Amino acid sequence: MYTDISKRKAVVLLSGGLDSTTTLAIARSEGYQIYALTFRYGQRHEVEIEAARRIAARYNVAQHVITEIDLRTFGGSALTDDIEVPKNRALDEISDGIPITYVPARNTIFLSFALAWAEVLGASDIFIGVNALDYSGYPDCRPEYIEAFERMADLATKAGVEARQRLKIHTPLISMTKAEIVKKGIELGVDYSLTITCYDPSAEGEACGECDACLLRLKGFAENKMSDPAKYRTASKSRA
Amino acid sequence: MYTDISKRKAVVLLSGGLDSTTTLAIARSEGYQIYALTFRYGQRHEVEIEAARRIAARYNVAQHVITEIDLRTFGGSALTDDIEVPKNRALDEISDGIPITYVPARNTIFLSFALAWAEVLGASDIFIGVNALDYSGYPDCRPEYIEAFERMADLATKAGVEARQRLKIHTPLISMTKAEIVKKGIELGVDYSLTITCYDPSAEGEACGECDACLLRLKGFAENKMSDPAKYRTASKSRA
Repeated sequence: MYTDISKRKAVVLLSGGLDSTTTLAIARSEGYQIYALTFRYGQRHEVEIEAARRIAARYNVAQHVITEIDLRTFGGSALTDDIEVPKNRALDEISDGIPITYVPARNTIFLSFALAWAEVLGASDIFIGVNALDYSGYPDCRPEYIEAFERMADLATKAGVEARQRLKIHTPLISMTKAEIVKKGIELGVDYSLTITCYDPSAEGEACGECDACLLRLKGFAENKMSDPAKYRTASKSRA
Repeated sequence: MYTDISKRKAVVLLSGGLDSTTTLAIARSEGYQIYALTFRYGQRHEVEIEAARRIAARYNVAQHVITEIDLRTFGGSALTDDIEVPKNRALDEISDGIPITYVPARNTIFLSFALAWAEVLGASDIFIGVNALDYSGYPDCRPEYIEAFERMADLATKAGVEARQRLKIHTPLISMTKAEIVKKGIELGVDYSLTITCYDPSAEGEACGECDACLLRLKGFAENKMSDPAKYRTASKSRA
């Protein structure tokens, strides 16, 4: 446990993927004491949880909470139902419309838990690695949604009502391309071999190299003229 | 399973208590097809879940989902921690300030799940039995909070973004006294013997008659010159 009372606390949503890990590194670089929050939500990729554990340990966070919620109860997404994950789509197809992997109200649920924890901790900062460019199809990744959540949160909590603190949701990646995110993470020394981004990884944590998330990630590394240190199960095309 | 495609669907938050059961009865009286949502959240009163089951069965709802979330992870409340529930407080004490039984961001978490289910169902109506009078201490029971949640929700979902539907959160009890709620429920034929309101019930579901929730409930029945049909484990004062 790493705690330092001189530092401000921040709740950081940590999925174990490239975006959330870069976000955690950014929060750390800004001097926050990190409280990492990971959800086990009946998604296929349980190996993400293991990745989140490794990353939280590597960053020696003040506390890492893994909490279970069951979004399968309601159905409605490829990540939680048995709909097939799309593979090898062209990049212009990926950002066209709301993707099949959309999980209803997912970020709202995640941010609500982060808000609860922030209130208990007396923290007024939440970091979330949403990105409005590469995933323009997710309504709950846009700045106007994030601002509406902040306004709601200030009316929801004791701290907000007593005006002791205003909630700030930090979205450092929101207007970055995947290539810019990778570049930022490399500058901050992120070890991307720890992260898992794939929608359809093997049980050993090897990425497929063909789903939308893999294709965008590989493109991000390629544009930095780097190879992705993650393990892929196929001899994937664009990895160097 | 009772389904009727001519009826609009509504997600109703159902705790098994007096308020949420009355709210369900109101939604039903307004012609909605009911999708009842109950949370098991590490609260002491597991008997509430059983009450919710009985009520959902009695009302023959289209679907009843009981979903588990772990709010104990974050601590911070008498209902989820081991803080003692206050007993036999004067009624003016009860509505003074934010109560010890406050659970951080609870309604935000509950409404987020309801929003996810509503989106999957294609429903644009959510009913929640919040009450701003008897529990003035909970910030997330106030009309301005509910409105802020609606605005956030319209930016969070596919349906909202595509302007196919605006989310409406119905709070029929928000400005009613407990006596008015009981009166309304009786008019609608609610069987209050099925409900559990107590913060500290016995394992058999008998109410304590002494916590804030019991005192307010008993007062509500007393003001209607009725006795509360719920079971109490003490020979409680104001029951007739």
